[in-house]
Amino acid sequence: MRLLLISNSTMPGEPYLTYPLPAIAGFLGEKPKNILFFPFAAVTFSFDTYEAKVRERMESLGHRLISIHHFNDPGRAIMEADVLMVGGGNTWQLVRMFHDQSLFPLMRQAIERGIPYIGWSAGSNVACPTLRTTNDMPIIDPLGFDCMGLVPFQINPHYLDHNPEGHGGETREQRIEEFLAINPGIHVVGLREGTMLRLEGKTLSLIGERTLRIFRQGSLPMELTAADDLSFLLEAKD
Amino acid sequence: MRLLLISNSTMPGEPYLTYPLPAIAGFLGEKPKNILFFPFAAVTFSFDTYEAKVRERMESLGHRLISIHHFNDPGRAIMEADVLMVGGGNTWQLVRMFHDQSLFPLMRQAIERGIPYIGWSAGSNVACPTLRTTNDMPIIDPLGFDCMGLVPFQINPHYLDHNPEGHGGETREQRIEEFLAINPGIHVVGLREGTMLRLEGKTLSLIGERTLRIFRQGSLPMELTAADDLSFLLEAKD
Repeated sequence: MRLLLISNSTMPGEPYLTYPLPAIAGFLGEKPKNILFFPFAAVTFSFDTYEAKVRERMESLGHRLISIHHFNDPGRAIMEADVLMVGGGNTWQLVRMFHDQSLFPLMRQAIERGIPYIGWSAGSNVACPTLRTTNDMPIIDPLGFDCMGLVPFQINPHYLDHNPEGHGGETREQRIEEFLAINPGIHVVGLREGTMLRLEGKTLSLIGERTLRIFRQGSLPMELTAADDLSFLLEAKD
Repeated sequence: MRLLLISNSTMPGEPYLTYPLPAIAGFLGEKPKNILFFPFAAVTFSFDTYEAKVRERMESLGHRLISIHHFNDPGRAIMEADVLMVGGGNTWQLVRMFHDQSLFPLMRQAIERGIPYIGWSAGSNVACPTLRTTNDMPIIDPLGFDCMGLVPFQINPHYLDHNPEGHGGETREQRIEEFLAINPGIHVVGLREGTMLRLEGKTLSLIGERTLRIFRQGSLPMELTAADDLSFLLEAKD
């Protein structure tokens, strides 16, 4: 499998989808590709708007992009795409739309066949076994928490070390500890902003200057860098 | 109905359950009460630990407190309690435990009969129609998003105005706008830390020095104070 799982589309103050663009370019290669885009996580803006925004960035790399919402037969569109790309937004709405159209199994088949997958934020969440480490507000019942399970671990995108000053809620680390208390035996990867994971077959690596924080029940959290071997995260769990 | 719906148990730097204590004292009155406590939102610490912590605070006010987990017949315990109290923690775990034991209808009956209800954080979320405005990580499938629906609006506890500096995720307001896009016609109440709502029959009021931020699809957000009439929030929705 070939996966590029990105924490966040955009760093504060930068134009849209800027920092991950070199990594996307390297992942896709120079030959022009037909990217099938899934804008389902958009809630407060239209699928057309989302498509136009992302298409502009992909065209700057020499690739073509079209959104799934233009197709009458989404299953066939998935089978014929060169690349599958899922944008961020609200994870709950995203998973609901995938479930309503029963697309996860088709996506997974295509990706297992070798079609590259790129996701950011909610698009990284759905590459995991379930959506249980999303940060998003559960604005709609997704009709099931299961996702694609392309990797055996859970990603927490937009991983944050601290709460805003004066805030009395749980830190992100405390929330992940709660997840682990209920779900022992699964790794949670805190993917800080400005970073991403790239999977090529059995090789998993971190891209970005910040470290990855990895949590597992019964162990102290680990901080790993782009130079570290992450393959232990790919071992199947009980 | 008599409800006290509190944003957060504790302000940063203060001892546990300090700022809401005068409001809880006023709400409960001087006559000693038997409080039935629900510690179900605790995930990383025991129900006994949670009970002891909250009991100490309630005993300081002259009331008795016992946790539901000591009863073989929780339905009967609910029927016989003077006060129902639900503490914060993880909303998803809390709702799952209520659903597993089918306790929401019994709680609701008791509260409609006049038994006072006190909740904070996750305990305020479950007084709403659904858990769809929780901030918590969905660590477990709650087997249904529906809650008690004691009020017709949704509360977002720990309401925060800004993101931590340098964070590229959605602000709380953007998350609530996403909720409204999918769920028009329902009010969302952003309950800032250090504040609470008190319902006495048909009179709803804010307690605290900070304002309440109220959202509804198609309207600009409103900021209301402890001096404002909040009764419009109680009107049943379509």
